[in-house]
Amino acid sequence: MREISRASAPAKVILFGEHFVVYDRLAIVMAIDLRACVTVKPRGDKKIIIRSNTMGLSGEFSFNGDYKPILGGFECIRLKPIYIAAKNVLNLAGEVVGLDINIESEIPVASGLGSSAAVSVATTAAVGNLLEMSLSKDDIFKLALEAERVVHENPSGVDPAVSTYGGVLAYRRSGGIMRLKVNADLPLVLGDTRVIRDTRKMVLHVSEIKRLYPEVVDGIMGVGELVANLAIKALEDGDLITLGHLMNINHALLYAIGVSNLAVERLVWAARQAGALGAKITGAGGGGCIIALSLRENLYHVAESIRVADGNPLIVNMASMGVKIEG
Amino acid sequence: MREISRASAPAKVILFGEHFVVYDRLAIVMAIDLRACVTVKPRGDKKIIIRSNTMGLSGEFSFNGDYKPILGGFECIRLKPIYIAAKNVLNLAGEVVGLDINIESEIPVASGLGSSAAVSVATTAAVGNLLEMSLSKDDIFKLALEAERVVHENPSGVDPAVSTYGGVLAYRRSGGIMRLKVNADLPLVLGDTRVIRDTRKMVLHVSEIKRLYPEVVDGIMGVGELVANLAIKALEDGDLITLGHLMNINHALLYAIGVSNLAVERLVWAARQAGALGAKITGAGGGGCIIALSLRENLYHVAESIRVADGNPLIVNMASMGVKIEG
Repeated sequence: MREISRASAPAKVILFGEHFVVYDRLAIVMAIDLRACVTVKPRGDKKIIIRSNTMGLSGEFSFNGDYKPILGGFECIRLKPIYIAAKNVLNLAGEVVGLDINIESEIPVASGLGSSAAVSVATTAAVGNLLEMSLSKDDIFKLALEAERVVHENPSGVDPAVSTYGGVLAYRRSGGIMRLKVNADLPLVLGDTRVIRDTRKMVLHVSEIKRLYPEVVDGIMGVGELVANLAIKALEDGDLITLGHLMNINHALLYAIGVSNLAVERLVWAARQAGALGAKITGAGGGGCIIALSLRENLYHVAESIRVADGNPLIVNMASMGVKIEG
Repeated sequence: MREISRASAPAKVILFGEHFVVYDRLAIVMAIDLRACVTVKPRGDKKIIIRSNTMGLSGEFSFNGDYKPILGGFECIRLKPIYIAAKNVLNLAGEVVGLDINIESEIPVASGLGSSAAVSVATTAAVGNLLEMSLSKDDIFKLALEAERVVHENPSGVDPAVSTYGGVLAYRRSGGIMRLKVNADLPLVLGDTRVIRDTRKMVLHVSEIKRLYPEVVDGIMGVGELVANLAIKALEDGDLITLGHLMNINHALLYAIGVSNLAVERLVWAARQAGALGAKITGAGGGGCIIALSLRENLYHVAESIRVADGNPLIVNMASMGVKIEG
């Protein structure tokens, strides 16, 4: 066993197919260059102590799962997947050892950027490396997905997948994960509406619209599938113009199922008016973040336009590297 | 021959299916209670003199079509369909008589409200009545459509149809016109973005998007057809809640083919936030007007919200009466 181990994993944005993915349609997700970094050290006792700068939470788990908060309240649900991730790796190795787990993340939480999955993936990798297990990426993905299952009733699995493998992935719930060739630089401006998104509410809203107008929503999702397929080709061709058009169309399909609002539209149109090639909701909608695809020379202009429209802009790039042992 | 004859015809809004109608999809249009009124009198000479308060134009046509402006410039294109409408009726009756044609209209021009068709229909009816011809509504429609053909290369025919028959019509280019049963009061707030719309530019834009992404746009138009069919049922059932949902979805489909913009979205969201049941572009988009469906008790609130968002609101109602002889 090593004395210390560090691993990091990237955040993600959904480029195409959010919501539709719940109904087994194709989604395309991209790892971005915001990372969660997890450091683990063995402890003499059998406690698993987790500290997170981002969440402002620290807590202590016993091996049987009892929780005692150290900092930031009694709520353990956000720390629990990290505990489960670590515990699963320990179980797999047959080790019974306490751990100090320290999380430093640059990923905004609760913004649809997959912060939770990135932390689970990095924790899994760091603990595996601490125990000198040489876990494969497939192993890490499966273990992290199990941890995610503890908090998210029915996770699609796309978040831990993209945090593990990096790059751009096509994903279908029933049909696995495919890494896509991308022959382009994909500079994005992420625009946070500062309106808290409620993923659960949005997913319920879509299921209600689907119940009321099943053929219409099936039709919309069918178009979404066509758009995602064209996007795979545009990514391969490095055709940013087409990719931008397709993002705009995908955004309109999300609008059609009722997950846009005025705060979102303000940012989307601010980005387009500043010359973004395409702009759309990323994630659940109803607030949260948008992404705008832009030529690199125009990125700051798009970001400024989003800022003027009351959004919080952040320039991000594709992260080819998924989970990574840092030492 | 009578000494004077007056007829009026209503404006229209498109409830569902603008743009898609060009590609032989179903559209639903409604006559509204803004009318063009046309008064005709025989003249001793063989001139056809047209005066329009709305257009600020007056001009004189000879029987062979030569044009001489009286007021408002040399451009005769906007007066020409009126001349043609009158001339066609005279030809049909085998009469050779000059006419004074006076147009008083409360329909805003160039706003996608079918002002031109309403004037052509009212002119046709007024001249027919002057000549004591007892034209049927079908006759009036066909004659007015011919006049529209002079200025609009390939008119869908829906504008003269709804101005002639009134009420709510389902229309398909290849498949005629059907009057719909409507078991509801349909109070609308019309919101003018004050951004000049360019129908030709918008139609070309849609044809370009369709050329680039044929399957996607076919899919979107297929969904539009489903939406229009559900709307027919909702109109029959008097189900305004469903009608509002369907208007929102139709708007999103128009957004998807690229005919919305920020000015439009501002008014659409202003209406929705004020409690409109649904809001959408009506007509070509890219500016022009939106319509918002509202409960009657909430109409003024929706109108005020549109005004605050920089729109010009106007409350309109369904006009059951199409073309009408006024005296």
